[in-house]
Amino acid sequence: MARVIVDVMLKPEILDAQGQAIARALPRLGFSGVSAVRQGKRFEVELEGPADEAAIADVRKMAETLLANTVIEDFTVTVES
Amino acid sequence: MARVIVDVMLKPEILDAQGQAIARALPRLGFSGVSAVRQGKRFEVELEGPADEAAIADVRKMAETLLANTVIEDFTVTVES
Repeated sequence: MARVIVDVMLKPEILDAQGQAIARALPRLGFSGVSAVRQGKRFEVELEGPADEAAIADVRKMAETLLANTVIEDFTVTVES
Repeated sequence: MARVIVDVMLKPEILDAQGQAIARALPRLGFSGVSAVRQGKRFEVELEGPADEAAIADVRKMAETLLANTVIEDFTVTVES
């Protein structure tokens, strides 16, 4: 049993309206010192077996085909220790 | 300039319908070996100054009041190195 994390974020050149809305709301709520916010998705994938190379490659394929839209999003895959 | 990551996930006892839908779609798409998937949100907060204790405390407050619904969600704050 291992847990693999897939983080999916909009590519830097794509406008992140949700992130901008949060960044603009912060001063109104009394928070200063934040220059930008970007919002993305986090997936926690529980594997039945160990997080070996084959399993990680599988999760990458999963991210490419199902979890991320690679036209507008980047993703990273990390094993949670 | 520092980047602080806020991860927001549904509490374990709350049903994650999106995550379940993904987990159920995987075998149909040819992926096996995944026992569960949970979906959450990831926020990348860019600070104007350094990520010192006061700044991290501020981001925690931000997460509590704006980014997470603490009735149904847990959050973690980490500094990206």
